[in-house]
Amino acid sequence: PEQGDAAAVSNIVAARDTDELALLLESLPQEQRLNVWDSIARHRKLEVLVAMRGDAREVLIDSTEQQEWEGLFSDIDAEQLLELADSLPNKLVDSALRAMDKQQRQFFRDASQFGDDQIGHWLSHDVLVLPLSAKVRDAMRLLRREVPEHTDSIFLINRAGQFAEVVRLTDVIGAPEHVPLVDLSEEEIDIVKAEEDCTKASLLVQKSGFSALPVVDESNKLLGRLDIATASELVNEFYERQLMASAGMDEEEDLFAPVKKSARSRAVWLGINLLTAFLASWFIGLFEATLQQVVALAVLMPVVASMGGIAGSQTLTLIIRGLALGQVTGGNRRALLVKELSVGGLNGVVWAIVIGIVASVWFSDPLIGVVIGMAILMNIVAAAFAGVLIPIALDKLKIDPALSGSVILTTVTDIVGFVAFLGLGTWWLL
Amino acid sequence: PEQGDAAAVSNIVAARDTDELALLLESLPQEQRLNVWDSIARHRKLEVLVAMRGDAREVLIDSTEQQEWEGLFSDIDAEQLLELADSLPNKLVDSALRAMDKQQRQFFRDASQFGDDQIGHWLSHDVLVLPLSAKVRDAMRLLRREVPEHTDSIFLINRAGQFAEVVRLTDVIGAPEHVPLVDLSEEEIDIVKAEEDCTKASLLVQKSGFSALPVVDESNKLLGRLDIATASELVNEFYERQLMASAGMDEEEDLFAPVKKSARSRAVWLGINLLTAFLASWFIGLFEATLQQVVALAVLMPVVASMGGIAGSQTLTLIIRGLALGQVTGGNRRALLVKELSVGGLNGVVWAIVIGIVASVWFSDPLIGVVIGMAILMNIVAAAFAGVLIPIALDKLKIDPALSGSVILTTVTDIVGFVAFLGLGTWWLL
Repeated sequence: PEQGDAAAVSNIVAARDTDELALLLESLPQEQRLNVWDSIARHRKLEVLVAMRGDAREVLIDSTEQQEWEGLFSDIDAEQLLELADSLPNKLVDSALRAMDKQQRQFFRDASQFGDDQIGHWLSHDVLVLPLSAKVRDAMRLLRREVPEHTDSIFLINRAGQFAEVVRLTDVIGAPEHVPLVDLSEEEIDIVKAEEDCTKASLLVQKSGFSALPVVDESNKLLGRLDIATASELVNEFYERQLMASAGMDEEEDLFAPVKKSARSRAVWLGINLLTAFLASWFIGLFEATLQQVVALAVLMPVVASMGGIAGSQTLTLIIRGLALGQVTGGNRRALLVKELSVGGLNGVVWAIVIGIVASVWFSDPLIGVVIGMAILMNIVAAAFAGVLIPIALDKLKIDPALSGSVILTTVTDIVGFVAFLGLGTWWLL
Repeated sequence: PEQGDAAAVSNIVAARDTDELALLLESLPQEQRLNVWDSIARHRKLEVLVAMRGDAREVLIDSTEQQEWEGLFSDIDAEQLLELADSLPNKLVDSALRAMDKQQRQFFRDASQFGDDQIGHWLSHDVLVLPLSAKVRDAMRLLRREVPEHTDSIFLINRAGQFAEVVRLTDVIGAPEHVPLVDLSEEEIDIVKAEEDCTKASLLVQKSGFSALPVVDESNKLLGRLDIATASELVNEFYERQLMASAGMDEEEDLFAPVKKSARSRAVWLGINLLTAFLASWFIGLFEATLQQVVALAVLMPVVASMGGIAGSQTLTLIIRGLALGQVTGGNRRALLVKELSVGGLNGVVWAIVIGIVASVWFSDPLIGVVIGMAILMNIVAAAFAGVLIPIALDKLKIDPALSGSVILTTVTDIVGFVAFLGLGTWWLL
């Protein structure tokens, strides 16, 4: 949208649904983003903020006047505030809490006791529940009230409030009024503990065949539910986090973050990588005398490092996915290492020969071919080794392998590559 | 599971559900995988195969005797065969088709006319449909039959079979028998065209608030539905494809593929990267004389290449995500380029100074600091430029930027980095 044509902007804005508006705002540069934001009807602003990614949303939050918040918060519920809380200054979180009723405030406090990687943080209280003794009649009464989206069943709880049984709505429909719901309960359902990892629990919901799974506390008391739409959002966020982490970024990263902020957030990653690059350089520096005498080694250095890096990142990617999916376990680690070392050995030999021949011909010196071939083989095998062990070790240390795995791996393959290549060169070529 | 203890294996196997079995098989080395496979009850084998990832499944398919297939196919439907078809030899696809009834065969043929990136390939025919004139009574009759999972509404079609309206089941429940369903239809629903991209359509389902969206052909005729569980599977596959593509792999890649097969599939990617590495080496070779005189340049080369590569991959990752989410459009491309160039310029200046100082001190030569500083600045800016333009260009050419983006980017940053660094070195240091 062009600036100045405010009426046109308003029309475009009014026609879009919440998710489209959130996407539109994310894809606009700062100035235009604020213009469109101003033309959104006040009663829609909160839901649009909730639907946006963290960093892009913060720009809008910062530009909103103190007095406007009261109006925006008039209708806020616990789930919305949980989604926004990280982007809001503490003062605004407090005023949102004051605007809520007692129950929503309690929901917010309960959820805040869980980390945002636990399902207790994201559960919904909008759930159809009846006592274990309820009949079809009770269910029908419940269904005549407003039923939340993605509801395909009623949860039955015992007197202690513990989850007991599940009944499908479609089994209730058409059944005689006096039949106890328990008699219609045919299926087993997976129960999610509130402290469970939110990606694992969400994947479970997606595969369960139910539109929502019950979430319980340690004593099996029903706290709420995780529905499949929320689960899908959480899974998508998990994948986005992995994709962004591979480049040292956050999944909240804003396409149009202010230049200074964006530069600062990326500088950290560049700095970490710089340290590893200097480390590699330092190792190369050990062979200055060799490089001076055999310049071909300097020319070919990138080939050795690159082949190790690529081979290692293939293994690394496969293992990181395996860890995330639960394919990689204590029981198959050793077999996996053997397999990856075999693949690395085979590819190492093949490419050592190819590269050795090319280098021999290029520099008219068969010995250079032998040196680079050996270095390639050693580096590809080392890469396979590192590609398996680094993510497994990081995972054990509770560090996200998607984030730090590739830096560590590249450091290993660079150093092994340069030292093997230049070391063998010093030994055999001088 | 240890070999030899077949009874124990059978017990473990019988206790697991389909998805768990599929995961277990994927995470086992070849030999053990075949042992577990043999102990799975015959009537469960087909559904387990369907739930597995492509490559891991092929091992099992190859080991299954010709005569066993008849039993496995006795109950196969179109959706299962569509999922398996790519892993099956043509002869087996034909014999599965012969085992189906006429309708399922037709479903399979219809779906096969769409590419597997189109929603027409994946739609389900298991859908509650009634004519536009139907009453609550008709709906209740329909609901007493078996209702597919993730069904929260009935689709109403007109006489031409075109999709017309949607009614929520919860609005039908409790309504008087003679009320026309149209009168209960309150909501708009998004309609998906069969030729639409399957990731886009699946994301739409996840956000729709419905458990399934109607899928129609060009003339709006209702073909079936896309439910949220299938949509989530498709979205998860999309993300996995992106993650694996960044290392030149397939999302079907098997953790325990046979060594030869695995080595072969990865060799292609190593080969492509080798070509780009040799290209970079060739450019370095142009400066052999310089390298011989100033060995410090050889020592510092990896720093220049690495900083460019990292900065570029950050921009690239952000743009690839933006393209996938629809954040990057024709309208904001220019603004995005300006912003990324600004971020690159700012980080370029900062790191040029830092690296310049370190290099000056290390080699006791301020001129080396100036040379590497300039090269770093040029390379980080070039990286930002390439990071924006490469994925956008690939996307226009319908090439997956997640797969080839990073190779092309690294080629650019390597060559720009080496040429700038060694070129400036030749000019100023000799």
